[in-house]
Amino acid sequence: MTVIRNFGAPPTVDREITLSQSSRHWLVPEETPVAFVYNGRNYAVMMATPADFADFAVGFSLTERVIDSANDLEALDIHQEERGVELRMTIDRRLSERLDLRQQRRNLVGRTGCGVCGLENAETIFEALPKVAPFRLKVPERSLLRAIEGLSSHQPLNARTRTVHAAAWATLAGEVVLAREDVGRHNALDKLLGGLAREARQDEDGFVVMSSRCSYEIVEKAARLGIRAVLSISAPTAFAIRKAAEANIALYVRAGEGVVEIGA
Amino acid sequence: MTVIRNFGAPPTVDREITLSQSSRHWLVPEETPVAFVYNGRNYAVMMATPADFADFAVGFSLTERVIDSANDLEALDIHQEERGVELRMTIDRRLSERLDLRQQRRNLVGRTGCGVCGLENAETIFEALPKVAPFRLKVPERSLLRAIEGLSSHQPLNARTRTVHAAAWATLAGEVVLAREDVGRHNALDKLLGGLAREARQDEDGFVVMSSRCSYEIVEKAARLGIRAVLSISAPTAFAIRKAAEANIALYVRAGEGVVEIGA
Repeated sequence: MTVIRNFGAPPTVDREITLSQSSRHWLVPEETPVAFVYNGRNYAVMMATPADFADFAVGFSLTERVIDSANDLEALDIHQEERGVELRMTIDRRLSERLDLRQQRRNLVGRTGCGVCGLENAETIFEALPKVAPFRLKVPERSLLRAIEGLSSHQPLNARTRTVHAAAWATLAGEVVLAREDVGRHNALDKLLGGLAREARQDEDGFVVMSSRCSYEIVEKAARLGIRAVLSISAPTAFAIRKAAEANIALYVRAGEGVVEIGA
Repeated sequence: MTVIRNFGAPPTVDREITLSQSSRHWLVPEETPVAFVYNGRNYAVMMATPADFADFAVGFSLTERVIDSANDLEALDIHQEERGVELRMTIDRRLSERLDLRQQRRNLVGRTGCGVCGLENAETIFEALPKVAPFRLKVPERSLLRAIEGLSSHQPLNARTRTVHAAAWATLAGEVVLAREDVGRHNALDKLLGGLAREARQDEDGFVVMSSRCSYEIVEKAARLGIRAVLSISAPTAFAIRKAAEANIALYVRAGEGVVEIGA
């Protein structure tokens, strides 16, 4: 159970701007630096839509493998300031030491790299992904189509700005039950996965719907959390397809009026 | 003048995949880890479309401020291997020492961060961007529309796969004279900026066209290289608009059948 405290006022997620030489107005999405701090140590800063911070903290910490379950996040202080947001998190000392060790190893690799091994640094890219299940999940096409149709009603920020991504969770019947939006599609997925983990729903049967294309990082994040199927609106990369096959994740893509399964 | 040598076979930029339960085929874009190595030291690994490596090396090194001009890159060895590509670059010792200092400072900040300053780590985000000129460039609307129209004929990979981004350079008359494609829009822009710098065209009057939306990083990269105007197909974020104003970069966005200027 994470203890969550809020400091400062919640930032705006969109802003009205005036277009030049006209009296027209537009709503554009805001984008804010969000710092992830574990036990007082900076880990990363992401540019993100300033919303759903608790979900973001849990989801990012899980997909980065800083924590192993949502409960590992003991406390979260959300500091909302003018220039950005800090997520100050408290984790168990054991997890903190594991994180330190990993960071030290990375710095070391970065320093002693000999040129023959620039790619050694990219260890996680070449690590085999865990298999999410012994076989691929089959999602009925009508469920996939229903999820695509249902997605837009879960995208209020995109309805106003027309330019942010969404990641959603749909049941095997195709009902969208949770969705998160962000200017970055990886952030949207982290927020969704965090939201699922916080509600302890990540073990329910269902699939992820991405409003974007499916790159390697989407598959990696899905694999780390045991997601069995991903539906994307635009095609995956060849690398993402190979990694999904490795993890037994089913990949579906919208194609014209239908949906196709890739690989398998 | 950069000495460029190629090792290994050029990777494929797209692959044919077979869709399940049908005999249909699709071309999907490839995505490959590309490691940036300076004087034998690893700097970063980007997931990118495996093409235009010399442009990518120069452009990335410039926008990351590792080098100050294309000529600072003394040598580039492109190692193309099965699992990824390494760009092994040689820079002057002075630049190499500057890079080391910067990296050490970053590691230090990362280690001693006290939780009050997670965002200190994001120094470059809060640094004021340099002004690219004392006033904003005005691009005629017909030039902007012509550039949008001309872009698609410079996107051969996207024509095959429908899912990669492009960054292009257009003259003030709206003629697209150079374009680069990538699965990542930041990479596409780095490749374009590298291509311009290698042809010593970066001081020509013109503007950048992005097939995507315009985020903070796009504006930052443009500002670092003195680009005076950016036209994007989808809207910028509010943060990108503020940063563009800071740098005197004109932002144009497609809106319906026309183009609008933002801010100013």
